[in-house]
Amino acid sequence: MFKNQQPTYYHDYLKLNALLNAQSPKSKEQGNEAHEEMLFIIVHQAYELWFKQILHDLKFIKNNFSQEQVLDEELSECTLKLERIHKIQGLLLSQIDVLETMTPMDFLEFRDLLIPASGFQSVQFREIEIGLGINEGQRPDMKQYNFMGRLNDKDQANLKKVMTQDSLFKLVEKWLERTPFLNNDEFDFWTSYKLSIEKMLEKDKKIIEENETLDSAQKEAQLANLAITGKTFEALLNEEIHNKSIEEGKKRLSHKATQAALFILLYRHEPIFNQPFRLLNGLMTLDSNFTTWRHRHAQLAKRMLGTKIGTGGSSGHKYLKATADRNKIFEDFNNLSTFLIPKSALPMLPKELKKKLSFHFSGY
Amino acid sequence: MFKNQQPTYYHDYLKLNALLNAQSPKSKEQGNEAHEEMLFIIVHQAYELWFKQILHDLKFIKNNFSQEQVLDEELSECTLKLERIHKIQGLLLSQIDVLETMTPMDFLEFRDLLIPASGFQSVQFREIEIGLGINEGQRPDMKQYNFMGRLNDKDQANLKKVMTQDSLFKLVEKWLERTPFLNNDEFDFWTSYKLSIEKMLEKDKKIIEENETLDSAQKEAQLANLAITGKTFEALLNEEIHNKSIEEGKKRLSHKATQAALFILLYRHEPIFNQPFRLLNGLMTLDSNFTTWRHRHAQLAKRMLGTKIGTGGSSGHKYLKATADRNKIFEDFNNLSTFLIPKSALPMLPKELKKKLSFHFSGY
Amino acid sequence: MFKNQQPTYYHDYLKLNALLNAQSPKSKEQGNEAHEEMLFIIVHQAYELWFKQILHDLKFIKNNFSQEQVLDEELSECTLKLERIHKIQGLLLSQIDVLETMTPMDFLEFRDLLIPASGFQSVQFREIEIGLGINEGQRPDMKQYNFMGRLNDKDQANLKKVMTQDSLFKLVEKWLERTPFLNNDEFDFWTSYKLSIEKMLEKDKKIIEENETLDSAQKEAQLANLAITGKTFEALLNEEIHNKSIEEGKKRLSHKATQAALFILLYRHEPIFNQPFRLLNGLMTLDSNFTTWRHRHAQLAKRMLGTKIGTGGSSGHKYLKATADRNKIFEDFNNLSTFLIPKSALPMLPKELKKKLSFHFSGY
Amino acid sequence: MFKNQQPTYYHDYLKLNALLNAQSPKSKEQGNEAHEEMLFIIVHQAYELWFKQILHDLKFIKNNFSQEQVLDEELSECTLKLERIHKIQGLLLSQIDVLETMTPMDFLEFRDLLIPASGFQSVQFREIEIGLGINEGQRPDMKQYNFMGRLNDKDQANLKKVMTQDSLFKLVEKWLERTPFLNNDEFDFWTSYKLSIEKMLEKDKKIIEENETLDSAQKEAQLANLAITGKTFEALLNEEIHNKSIEEGKKRLSHKATQAALFILLYRHEPIFNQPFRLLNGLMTLDSNFTTWRHRHAQLAKRMLGTKIGTGGSSGHKYLKATADRNKIFEDFNNLSTFLIPKSALPMLPKELKKKLSFHFSGY
Repeated sequence: MFKNQQPTYYHDYLKLNALLNAQSPKSKEQGNEAHEEMLFIIVHQAYELWFKQILHDLKFIKNNFSQEQVLDEELSECTLKLERIHKIQGLLLSQIDVLETMTPMDFLEFRDLLIPASGFQSVQFREIEIGLGINEGQRPDMKQYNFMGRLNDKDQANLKKVMTQDSLFKLVEKWLERTPFLNNDEFDFWTSYKLSIEKMLEKDKKIIEENETLDSAQKEAQLANLAITGKTFEALLNEEIHNKSIEEGKKRLSHKATQAALFILLYRHEPIFNQPFRLLNGLMTLDSNFTTWRHRHAQLAKRMLGTKIGTGGSSGHKYLKATADRNKIFEDFNNLSTFLIPKSALPMLPKELKKKLSFHFSGY
Repeated sequence: MFKNQQPTYYHDYLKLNALLNAQSPKSKEQGNEAHEEMLFIIVHQAYELWFKQILHDLKFIKNNFSQEQVLDEELSECTLKLERIHKIQGLLLSQIDVLETMTPMDFLEFRDLLIPASGFQSVQFREIEIGLGINEGQRPDMKQYNFMGRLNDKDQANLKKVMTQDSLFKLVEKWLERTPFLNNDEFDFWTSYKLSIEKMLEKDKKIIEENETLDSAQKEAQLANLAITGKTFEALLNEEIHNKSIEEGKKRLSHKATQAALFILLYRHEPIFNQPFRLLNGLMTLDSNFTTWRHRHAQLAKRMLGTKIGTGGSSGHKYLKATADRNKIFEDFNNLSTFLIPKSALPMLPKELKKKLSFHFSGY
Repeated sequence: MFKNQQPTYYHDYLKLNALLNAQSPKSKEQGNEAHEEMLFIIVHQAYELWFKQILHDLKFIKNNFSQEQVLDEELSECTLKLERIHKIQGLLLSQIDVLETMTPMDFLEFRDLLIPASGFQSVQFREIEIGLGINEGQRPDMKQYNFMGRLNDKDQANLKKVMTQDSLFKLVEKWLERTPFLNNDEFDFWTSYKLSIEKMLEKDKKIIEENETLDSAQKEAQLANLAITGKTFEALLNEEIHNKSIEEGKKRLSHKATQAALFILLYRHEPIFNQPFRLLNGLMTLDSNFTTWRHRHAQLAKRMLGTKIGTGGSSGHKYLKATADRNKIFEDFNNLSTFLIPKSALPMLPKELKKKLSFHFSGY
Repeated sequence: MFKNQQPTYYHDYLKLNALLNAQSPKSKEQGNEAHEEMLFIIVHQAYELWFKQILHDLKFIKNNFSQEQVLDEELSECTLKLERIHKIQGLLLSQIDVLETMTPMDFLEFRDLLIPASGFQSVQFREIEIGLGINEGQRPDMKQYNFMGRLNDKDQANLKKVMTQDSLFKLVEKWLERTPFLNNDEFDFWTSYKLSIEKMLEKDKKIIEENETLDSAQKEAQLANLAITGKTFEALLNEEIHNKSIEEGKKRLSHKATQAALFILLYRHEPIFNQPFRLLNGLMTLDSNFTTWRHRHAQLAKRMLGTKIGTGGSSGHKYLKATADRNKIFEDFNNLSTFLIPKSALPMLPKELKKKLSFHFSGY
């Protein structure tokens, strides 16, 4: 305790006066309280509290990545925050289970009173999405749903400001582009790697052709898929092709950053790439957790309302299903898994480089 | 203990000799054991053990529903088994998290040795799907994937036998068709219910029309959706229209069973419908848990292999994603949620009927 | 939407202005914000929100049990609320995992600023405990810890008021005492049940005596345990002995209520006891979930602080461990499991009684 | 695929013939199958499969730690295996939830047939405990329970062999004792650290003395606790005192290893201690997960049997509760949390040393 510090009181510290008086069921105001409206309010308030925490931790990560150099120690701190967000996402998911204890019929007792309010209007959730770097062009809601139009002026202004800032996607991309060792004079990684991949594709082709359980139409379909994989691989090596994919909206991550990410994924076992790998992995998990959450959310909406309109005045189920499949941000990292190869087939790093990638003390 | 009974020994009772000698990594046979292959084997064996348990409990449920009458006490036992299966499905989901601790690169060290074996060939899982009543016409695997062709003759014969038996879907449908009280002389449920629904649809229409945050194109789209809901409702009342939907593959559940299911969902609070509701609810949860599992499985395949072919010799990710959205069995129950209404708007049951739906003793 | 109703806005409905401005880290006030204090605040606020919801649902249950008669339909609603509380308890547990992502060293950066505030002072949590019916005599905190002394006058007054009301334990006890059928003229349950139990104890005795893997000292210990079980059984049949156990603080539940609870546990498969059983089971789960939570909480305190004092100014770990083992409310139900017997050994109910325990329609 | 390799068939690869024929319910042999015995068998078999996997990964870790030097890359691999075991422990916990879907009365239908078999006799679980380094002296089962006496000769011989090998505890202790930098000429860590701790203890004393919410008896108790903490701290600096604690069975970890562990916990943010910290943390989580599992197991036994004897012929509940609190292996690491201090109060490392603890490249 410090001089002049008043002893802290739990109730005041947590501002429970404000917090526990913030639940005003509409049905109660109307004189006929629906017991379940309290749950509806509290679940959504708990969501907003956790969104605030996610934003708090994302800000920490973004501040670190806004620097010209990210120290290994800082990278490690960022990864820990990411891993916390994963756990919070676990809570977000479990909160759906709690909400689902409300029956559809109990929900209908007060649904009409909420119209046209909707989770759709959560400014903090939009801040998270924009801050992570959601691709506005891909949003289903920009077309049919227009979430901006449903916000008041102040909330719109806030979000527009967020849109002008570098997203986490952008910051990570820049950081990846700075990855050293990619073009080392003594080590032509890409040439030897290319050979490994070509061998792999060749083997896969043979596997399909020799698979007696497939009929000829099926084989053709499989081989066509393989050809697409081959094309994607070409793009990995050829900047021009890669850039065209970006223009066509098939990819987002720059050519240089893509190569760096692949290098990190492949050499994750080298001490110096340990933290970078954990970070990339953490970003993929973040994406996949939100995808899972959106799927469960869509299932919930379906069970609660069927094809009836939600409180936002449109079919929640359809909207949520659409976002679940499209709102992925770090998808380009996931797609790189196609080009992972067994560790034993990995081009050996030159001794000098390997030394640079390690500590002075390599262990004890 | 019984006369002449040998004292039971843990190791023998669980046949641990057989169980713990059933792990033979291919990579070890080839002289260069990949550490992670053991995990791969054990996860899949644990899946098969749990599939056996699910089949054991499904058999119990199906035996009960094969009778001419299902007593309330039996219904309750069946629901408990269903709820156990949900918990087992929770394990199946968590086992994916365990498998995911294997890196893609470690997996690639032995993937080639497994080709063309695939989880795809799990006969028990197919038995579960068929036993539940998967709609063979909807399977993506019957077209592009042809899972039967990949099984040996014995396994094919087993599955074909299962296909000739009544599925759980069929048995539940027959049971629903037997639901009493639906057409009670003193109570014309459908006429008063129809009025409630029409009022609801009318109100939803007004909500859309008066929503100032929608532009005219968006309003049109919403109203079109609403019109479809209106059509679905018509089908609920009109057997002919309903049967046409079945012919077109849009629905599976018979008209009579559909009406009974809706009645149960609406009057779930009446003591006699308590167990029937829990059962229907349990079947929906079963479906939705398998859907979640397939989605996670697809995510895993994507992260492990990208668009590379899986051990089965085809893109696992694509296949799994396709099945996740299509292999739903009790979807028709879910769709009924569109026609739930607030309890307060529910047609009152006549006193006489209400008495029949209750115990002699209504409480204490 | 209703005439004169303003369209609801998400941000206003959830009072996000109040909610999202209720986080004021002390370290920030002191001019040197500790990043992790936000997490500390938000976790505790989320706890308080969920405590409010638990109190809301407990109130619903207690209102129903305060009536002279609880209808089966009402019982079913109460059980659903209990099962929701279980899911909320799942969140409370997972929130510990989130808090644990904070390192002890990061916690120590702001711990001193919080002293002497403590989760210990959560009035809502005390309301839950008292409302459920915690036995004040058993509280470790009434002796060494004196939680009341740490609350301000207003909070103390609130809790004292709660203490004057019937707890859920008391209400359930009264309801159990009203259970019909226990003393039915045509059916002397207790005589035939006594025989079954005596047979069971006799068999257990033989098992111990014939167990060749136990030496004589071990056998003696086992037989002593068995003798205690035998004594407990006597108390079940003899009101006088039972009342003495209550006086000695070894039991809480009245003799009549205990017998009723056992009857329900044994005949849970009879339709009319389905809901009563689910309720008792739900209360046991409630207890066991709080026990698990307190254990995890104690583990967390240990990992964060070791034997250092917590923010409340005393060793949190020791206190929490003490409460985990003692603060059980519905323990007497759990202890009844000793006297469950296989369904096949259960005294058959007379036909007439069995009929009374069922619906008019027993199934379809 | 390799030349001469037979195509792998799923059913054969997983030895499903052996696996799915290893379930032989005793009740079925006796001619009256209890439906729930299958669940009992399968849960325990799934446990054994996962125990095999845990042993497989522990072997990997122990092999690495048996070397004279553990490279950072190897440490990282070991931590990943540990983190997998945590996920498997999550499964072990969830499997209890599945088993709990069996009612006590259904269990009693076949319990007698299993006597005296018991989970107690799981050789693999004992191998895990011994392999981790359980302190045989602390086992409650060595006194009252004597698990060895219940095993057949072959199983006893196996375990006795495991007991002769270095446990993971021992191997980690040796590795910790090798930690460099602890006694660096230019840096007298312990002197400056001692000052920090003394300041902390002094402050805690003042907090207790000035806490107006405590009466004098309570203050005395708190101060006594604090004095004990002070004594523990002395032992940390004084090898003689520490060794006495070991002799008295209050500690296990050698003085040198304890100091190294503390150093790692304090400087976890330095890149070179990142992996060592994750390892220590992983070992603590391993312990705490098993503790949670044993607690849940004890709760289950209580609910299933009360104080009736279990299949092993003794009160399972009591035994399990006893082991939950005592069978901790890495407890000494946990106890170190008492001596963590805020990062900002940590003695600064000399520049030269700090450089040695980092990569050549510190970030990008």
